[in-house]
Amino acid sequence: MPDFITLTTDFGLKDPFAGIMKGVILNINPEVEIIDISHNVSPQNIIEASLILRDAFKFFPEKTIHVAVVDPGVGSLRKPILVVTPEYYFIGPDNGIFSFAYQDEHRVIHITAENYFLKSEDTTFHGRDIFAPVAGWLSKGVTADNFGSTIKDYLKIIFPKPKRISDELIEGEIIYIDNFGNAASNISRKEIGDLTSEPSNLKILIKDKEIKGINMFYAQTFDKGPSAIINSSGLLEIYIYQGNAEKKLGLKRGDKIGVMV
Amino acid sequence: MPDFITLTTDFGLKDPFAGIMKGVILNINPEVEIIDISHNVSPQNIIEASLILRDAFKFFPEKTIHVAVVDPGVGSLRKPILVVTPEYYFIGPDNGIFSFAYQDEHRVIHITAENYFLKSEDTTFHGRDIFAPVAGWLSKGVTADNFGSTIKDYLKIIFPKPKRISDELIEGEIIYIDNFGNAASNISRKEIGDLTSEPSNLKILIKDKEIKGINMFYAQTFDKGPSAIINSSGLLEIYIYQGNAEKKLGLKRGDKIGVMV
Amino acid sequence: MPDFITLTTDFGLKDPFAGIMKGVILNINPEVEIIDISHNVSPQNIIEASLILRDAFKFFPEKTIHVAVVDPGVGSLRKPILVVTPEYYFIGPDNGIFSFAYQDEHRVIHITAENYFLKSEDTTFHGRDIFAPVAGWLSKGVTADNFGSTIKDYLKIIFPKPKRISDELIEGEIIYIDNFGNAASNISRKEIGDLTSEPSNLKILIKDKEIKGINMFYAQTFDKGPSAIINSSGLLEIYIYQGNAEKKLGLKRGDKIGVMV
Repeated sequence: MPDFITLTTDFGLKDPFAGIMKGVILNINPEVEIIDISHNVSPQNIIEASLILRDAFKFFPEKTIHVAVVDPGVGSLRKPILVVTPEYYFIGPDNGIFSFAYQDEHRVIHITAENYFLKSEDTTFHGRDIFAPVAGWLSKGVTADNFGSTIKDYLKIIFPKPKRISDELIEGEIIYIDNFGNAASNISRKEIGDLTSEPSNLKILIKDKEIKGINMFYAQTFDKGPSAIINSSGLLEIYIYQGNAEKKLGLKRGDKIGVMV
Repeated sequence: MPDFITLTTDFGLKDPFAGIMKGVILNINPEVEIIDISHNVSPQNIIEASLILRDAFKFFPEKTIHVAVVDPGVGSLRKPILVVTPEYYFIGPDNGIFSFAYQDEHRVIHITAENYFLKSEDTTFHGRDIFAPVAGWLSKGVTADNFGSTIKDYLKIIFPKPKRISDELIEGEIIYIDNFGNAASNISRKEIGDLTSEPSNLKILIKDKEIKGINMFYAQTFDKGPSAIINSSGLLEIYIYQGNAEKKLGLKRGDKIGVMV
Repeated sequence: MPDFITLTTDFGLKDPFAGIMKGVILNINPEVEIIDISHNVSPQNIIEASLILRDAFKFFPEKTIHVAVVDPGVGSLRKPILVVTPEYYFIGPDNGIFSFAYQDEHRVIHITAENYFLKSEDTTFHGRDIFAPVAGWLSKGVTADNFGSTIKDYLKIIFPKPKRISDELIEGEIIYIDNFGNAASNISRKEIGDLTSEPSNLKILIKDKEIKGINMFYAQTFDKGPSAIINSSGLLEIYIYQGNAEKKLGLKRGDKIGVMV
């Protein structure tokens, strides 16, 4: 039986919403352990939540239940879903937030079994009334099929892919900026490996800057200008050593980035 | 015996204060589980802490110990208290922070049993020296009466109530603004039900705006102007769909709000 | 065997980094409990992390494993270390972050046993790939010596000490500012005790202000000017009652502070 439930939301850490979900879960299954992945997803940013969870989910023990609540459509016709993969469960709204999990074997269940829901007069907090109790009962041993029927018409987000412009050039974009102001692109280690076997000779183009080569570790550079590295998600990342690349270079999600032989 | 202790404080999440309280509790009772409700209460805002905890406390398992530390009077003559209700325990300063619990059956104990306190040379951190260890020992099975004697002269906060101006008008005020910028008033579902059986025909007056009707779910609206809903606490709330009503309308706590047939 | 692992990092609470470390640890030892001390250390501020952890570590149960990841040199030649003291373990980078622990009996092990590491193609996230798994295995009962050999050439931070300028004057500096804007100095209760037995007669000099006497509790003052107190770490602290001394006085780390008979 699942021992762990993780939470990824845009609730922030001031309001009681995350705490309330924990209370609801523990009221159903006092034995399960609840781990926060993030409650500081930018409000209603489904793509950001998806990227955060994609990076984190596979490091948890098998059978962990990952609950994600970034849910601008709460209470509308968007479906509550339970995604079952060979290793994990995912519970949340059907708005594409679990798209990364659809690359592997998976089954999507439309959660309809109201007998597992919290009784509530309002329709604004499915985290509390649907997702938390379903996670609680699932962790208690209720099998997935009890919560509803398998559906095929669930939503998928198509993440932007880098383009191979020529033999010598890949064009991608910034997709995530972290707490340090490091800006990760959608260009992966593999795509760079396909371009060249000598990444230290590459040129990285970002804004009006040109960066020479890809570093092996952050402290490899001593100047205060922009540098490049393959980050812990396996993605090409722009950083400034002991500085903040986001602020210094004015980077934001969607900015184009080029990699040139 | 209580299995869970929750924490609600204005300590923020940078300083080690919340972590220190957890260490003290676990040193006394390594078996108890500690859940954060919020550490981001606005500094010294007792009313805000009280509203956060009021929304959250009842979702936790019976016998949960709720510890709240928003405590501008720490070290002065204000009393440390333990509130016992049929379902829960509350531990914190006697400054009104638990007023919501005084609407039901309750008993208030002035915590005086210093043998359960952490020895300390200073008087600035009762969270660490009094509230955490008392919560730890209570969760270990020490009965409530061991911590002190029942008192009657504890502090109560009188929360502002909405006024029924006429058969056709209720006047309330904004009492809480959440992470999404949604502004909750003190006007409840019941008070609106007493005014009309057709809430979709109501007019909501806030600042110089007039909102038509109360929505059933956030996404019910498609314009970017202010909308109204009954939120997950059962209170009338002003929001902007996929926007921030606090910022766009300049809302703040205390702002008047009207509901008109 | 250790039952608890604490985390102190500069990862912030939006990115999945802290959650990933928890997943890695629980994958190795599902029984251990993980407690956050802080993830909001200022980016790459080793001294701040060291002060936060110094205040907190001793309140946790014996054998607790304290993991700290503030690590600008990640991937470079700086060593990963495990510090063993009679009561606790500390795991993190060899950059001085555990200097406070070197005042007592201690042994520093250079972590080199790669068989305990997470296999990874990149070198940017030792929190995930080295520190978390080593903490997990240590909590599982693997003994400290299995992770590497004792070293003597580890890094120490020399914290600034207050100067006794004359029989009547101590000069120190602000070393930490907390969530309330209270500014702690490096002048301790003991140093003030050596200067005078009547702290209520002292004069405290900060910026261009002179504060009369040291209060016994925060609420002892009723004016809105700067006041002084011995804080919960045993250090002289400047505060404004129900206000923010950092903002009102423009205080920052490194500001000089004088204590005069």
